[in-house]
Amino acid sequence: MQLTELAHHLHLSLPTLDADFSDVAPLHGSGGEDLSFITERKWLDKVLAGSVRAAAYLVPAELAEPLQQAQIAHLVTATPAWHIATTGVLLGRHTLNVLGIHPSASIDPSAQLAPGVCVAAKAVIEAQVVIGADSVIHAGAVIQQGVHIGARCIIGSNSVIGFDGFGYEYAQGRHQKIPHLGTVIIEDDVEIGANSTIDRARFGATRIGSGTKIDNLVQIAHNVEIGRHCLIVAQVGIAGSCRIEDGAILAGQAGLVPHVTIGRGARVGAATGVAGSVPAGSTWSGWYGQAHRDNMSQLAAVRALPAFIKKVQAFMKKWEEKDQQPG
Amino acid sequence: MQLTELAHHLHLSLPTLDADFSDVAPLHGSGGEDLSFITERKWLDKVLAGSVRAAAYLVPAELAEPLQQAQIAHLVTATPAWHIATTGVLLGRHTLNVLGIHPSASIDPSAQLAPGVCVAAKAVIEAQVVIGADSVIHAGAVIQQGVHIGARCIIGSNSVIGFDGFGYEYAQGRHQKIPHLGTVIIEDDVEIGANSTIDRARFGATRIGSGTKIDNLVQIAHNVEIGRHCLIVAQVGIAGSCRIEDGAILAGQAGLVPHVTIGRGARVGAATGVAGSVPAGSTWSGWYGQAHRDNMSQLAAVRALPAFIKKVQAFMKKWEEKDQQPG
Amino acid sequence: MQLTELAHHLHLSLPTLDADFSDVAPLHGSGGEDLSFITERKWLDKVLAGSVRAAAYLVPAELAEPLQQAQIAHLVTATPAWHIATTGVLLGRHTLNVLGIHPSASIDPSAQLAPGVCVAAKAVIEAQVVIGADSVIHAGAVIQQGVHIGARCIIGSNSVIGFDGFGYEYAQGRHQKIPHLGTVIIEDDVEIGANSTIDRARFGATRIGSGTKIDNLVQIAHNVEIGRHCLIVAQVGIAGSCRIEDGAILAGQAGLVPHVTIGRGARVGAATGVAGSVPAGSTWSGWYGQAHRDNMSQLAAVRALPAFIKKVQAFMKKWEEKDQQPG
Repeated sequence: MQLTELAHHLHLSLPTLDADFSDVAPLHGSGGEDLSFITERKWLDKVLAGSVRAAAYLVPAELAEPLQQAQIAHLVTATPAWHIATTGVLLGRHTLNVLGIHPSASIDPSAQLAPGVCVAAKAVIEAQVVIGADSVIHAGAVIQQGVHIGARCIIGSNSVIGFDGFGYEYAQGRHQKIPHLGTVIIEDDVEIGANSTIDRARFGATRIGSGTKIDNLVQIAHNVEIGRHCLIVAQVGIAGSCRIEDGAILAGQAGLVPHVTIGRGARVGAATGVAGSVPAGSTWSGWYGQAHRDNMSQLAAVRALPAFIKKVQAFMKKWEEKDQQPG
Repeated sequence: MQLTELAHHLHLSLPTLDADFSDVAPLHGSGGEDLSFITERKWLDKVLAGSVRAAAYLVPAELAEPLQQAQIAHLVTATPAWHIATTGVLLGRHTLNVLGIHPSASIDPSAQLAPGVCVAAKAVIEAQVVIGADSVIHAGAVIQQGVHIGARCIIGSNSVIGFDGFGYEYAQGRHQKIPHLGTVIIEDDVEIGANSTIDRARFGATRIGSGTKIDNLVQIAHNVEIGRHCLIVAQVGIAGSCRIEDGAILAGQAGLVPHVTIGRGARVGAATGVAGSVPAGSTWSGWYGQAHRDNMSQLAAVRALPAFIKKVQAFMKKWEEKDQQPG
Repeated sequence: MQLTELAHHLHLSLPTLDADFSDVAPLHGSGGEDLSFITERKWLDKVLAGSVRAAAYLVPAELAEPLQQAQIAHLVTATPAWHIATTGVLLGRHTLNVLGIHPSASIDPSAQLAPGVCVAAKAVIEAQVVIGADSVIHAGAVIQQGVHIGARCIIGSNSVIGFDGFGYEYAQGRHQKIPHLGTVIIEDDVEIGANSTIDRARFGATRIGSGTKIDNLVQIAHNVEIGRHCLIVAQVGIAGSCRIEDGAILAGQAGLVPHVTIGRGARVGAATGVAGSVPAGSTWSGWYGQAHRDNMSQLAAVRALPAFIKKVQAFMKKWEEKDQQPG
């Protein structure tokens, strides 16, 4: 494929210098037949130093000028990581896919699957499930009774959507199971990884907003409401009735206690414990979550604490001794 | 349905004021046809203020008097959350269920299933498994060889009961797998969520006591012994040979190192790391777990630490300077 | 079986005193018919005190002398835990196994399974998968398209190997899914627990080195490279492009941010958050990971902090008052 041809495909400005390539590769593994990509200044320096020699590069606008001056073939794009991979697909590289309905899938006759829905081996679609057009259910995933899934969604292998919420009330000497009368609603363009779990609501619906992406081994409890275009990274746990507003990002292993709100566009750091609501646009971190800046300054203070205590103790001892000296 | 009729069904005192309702709903979504429920004073105030108008309410005794005075129909119950949901079931609302043995389940001929056991699609019951009456195995769950499950248990979708414990001994330049000769015994009325894992013991049995409830994505390692009526919330990890006594509660993402004991009725907070045994009846929290009260006072001290350090440094500087001044 | 016969089987030195046994048991559950084992001094003391009476014991060399003097039958081995369990297998005790290819497994015709590969019920082997000799795929595990698994590997029930990595680039108002062109390569003698997930790489391969053992509910993201003979305990999360060198150990619930390296033989403690690379041979711990010794001294300082603050405040108050007294 030629760089000019690729520019047409990706709707990018035409290159000033053309080049041929037959595959895509990351920078450190690329050779003269490959299109590669650059997203950081230090990678650009390696290319300019001649220690890497791909046929051409995808670069963001802010890194393009030096390539231009060095007469190295490139295309300018705001999304080099996305475009290098989609170029790989154009070149025929294989990606994980599911075609049609696998004969070993179990699909209840009352389920409604729109045209284009694909279901992989051993997946289970229970009664009254509704799945929108072109959605993909991977191997072994379980879509429990009455769950609604939108169009163009991906449900990862062995994930479970719509199991009962974990709700009990103690009476008569035991934990009485609270029946869950609600369901799960997953809007369009949602993607969920492998072995994740999303529980059904007590009354209404646990809801995942359109465009939100969820990684592997994530727990989303009953009655959680997640907005649009959020990112929920692996092993996050979201307790019952939390509300995650549009565009929020929860990094890996973060955990939320019940009933907290994560404001629009907020970012919750890795392994952060969220015990209260997080303001829109803020960045939160810590075992007992707080503003990231405060958390980091306290972590630094704790690191200095043993030495500080010794210093203060020596100071106090000296002045106490001074005090006891005869004047 | 009439409130009086419901009182008979739930074995509650008859209401002083009757009412008709046709569905159940949480307070914020309820209308004039609905039975709703109140568990907190602030919700009661909304009802008294007239901003919510359900047909009638379930309330605990301590919140009933104001409704009585305001002539608002209600039933008194110690468990409003449980009773509102079971009323929904009485009214025909749908809940997640499994009927009979799904033809796509894989059940080894040597497994013994008591009457009333239900097995959903793609579940796997391996050789020599024993399952007590009326237990339910959800879709894709795997019950490995020789595991015993009691009566009236629920095993969630894609959970794995009885996989080998993670045990190795280093010899001859590699980790030698220690064969696990034991099994898992799950007593009556235990409920386990989706995608959880409970490993078999080295010799005897990993054991889950009757009435204990376990959430999604929970890891219970080999030789753990859990008592009766415990609650284990999502993503908790319990390492090998731990002992959890009756009635203990482990909140989400808590983690236990091997061989610790959680005393009877103790509570371990969310994301708490338990590195030593927890006394009966106590509440534990912290990244390196300790008594909750101590943990909270230390967290408060750490939050104040950067300012405290500055203040002390200024103080010491002032006095050191004083010391160096000519007397 | 006689102790002498067992010594031959296990290639150990012959015992000075022979004994008969018919089963194996841990110390606290052993009787006169059992072979048991001792790995700690306190257990040895119980045996010497006569409070335990097994037929014979497996012991490491450093604990053997007192048994010799007390004329108690024993075999000396460097790996008593491994040898007691393998003795159980010799005696016919049952262990979890898979025989042949279960008829309910789904195996794509293009997959290549070497001789001796066993596949349990409801497991899914997708297209172009390659599995080496004598590997075992447990029930419900999903091996996605094009994944390579070596010889003598064990893949636990409901684990998912080769799902797409969690990679998106934000453009045109949404998270654009980055196609993953790579795969997962699992070398020989790797064992993976239940419900774990290992994602495929963007270009090349996510790679698990030979002899590495991985527990349940572990997340390994795209492009991670794990060396040989590592141990990864339950619920660990490893973000994209991390590198774990040979012999490293990650304890339960540890979490790694993207692109960090864990040096050869390093140990990362339970629930440790790794935000930067860990030197070879070191031990790391803490919510915000650091050298274990530093972390523990800071934890101790934090525990003493509330009292320390009070003491310093009293000291400062006293001296400030002194300062304000008329000289």
